[in-house]
Amino acid sequence: MPTAPPRPAPALRPATRADLPAVLALLADEDRVVDPATVVVTEVYERAFAAIDADPRNELLVLPDGDGTVVGCLQATYIPGLGKGGAERALVEAVRIRPDRRGEGLGRALMDQAVDRARARGCALVQLTSDKRREDAHRFYAALGFARSHEGFKLALRALPGRPGRA
Amino acid sequence: MPTAPPRPAPALRPATRADLPAVLALLADEDRVVDPATVVVTEVYERAFAAIDADPRNELLVLPDGDGTVVGCLQATYIPGLGKGGAERALVEAVRIRPDRRGEGLGRALMDQAVDRARARGCALVQLTSDKRREDAHRFYAALGFARSHEGFKLALRALPGRPGRA
Repeated sequence: MPTAPPRPAPALRPATRADLPAVLALLADEDRVVDPATVVVTEVYERAFAAIDADPRNELLVLPDGDGTVVGCLQATYIPGLGKGGAERALVEAVRIRPDRRGEGLGRALMDQAVDRARARGCALVQLTSDKRREDAHRFYAALGFARSHEGFKLALRALPGRPGRA
Repeated sequence: MPTAPPRPAPALRPATRADLPAVLALLADEDRVVDPATVVVTEVYERAFAAIDADPRNELLVLPDGDGTVVGCLQATYIPGLGKGGAERALVEAVRIRPDRRGEGLGRALMDQAVDRARARGCALVQLTSDKRREDAHRFYAALGFARSHEGFKLALRALPGRPGRA
């Protein structure tokens, strides 16, 4: 029997309002699958999504599976600046692959396409930070060609509900 | 004779077009004083400044000396997001104090006021990255209360003129 042709990598696309429960489910717990049907989309998240969606320098991007299920996400922010020959830099935050779908190359598909988007836009650089405790993520970014050249500093300004999201 | 009263910390303010040569001079060389009069403001930098200035989520901020001379700068980007209870986070880039004016507390005045601006805006977090080779800067940010919790990764997308600016 002929083998099935390799499946094309799923295409990264901007999130719509309908993706919000799936994205919040991914952000809610990095290490456990959360059912989007259990996610309550409060007004705070409606407003935050609307702010991202309306900003031409912010994109919430989702990676759909073959059947359209969202299995990954990230947020890209394109930052104008005076360094880098006046080019924008892309900051990537909130990178997630659904925990039960890791090891299939989806993370690479997600990041490769995010980097391609930044390049097509004319960005000089893509940057991100990763929690020092997540050595697996550091190996992943190094394998994608990222240089671990900087220390990442964070200053919390107020106490926050623990989920979803983390610094 | 009475001693002079302590000078108030200079007030951080948004840069205007007139500050552009001074800011580019600060960015051109972190370790050497560059005379703003020698800086050529090319169209690339005019456009980059205009983009920052027109974006309500980006601010180029300058620290003037008593006589109005710009002795420090930074860029703040306020990023909407679904984490952090839906609050913005502030990203700080391009932090500079003129090399001959270090050790006077100007860096602290710069950062304290930038953090105050982020807090007043409702940001949940201030974040930045610092080149791993700059241990002096790391001690400075730690003293301001920042946690060195993350690894900072950068991926250059194209070759760039070396100055001004660095990743």
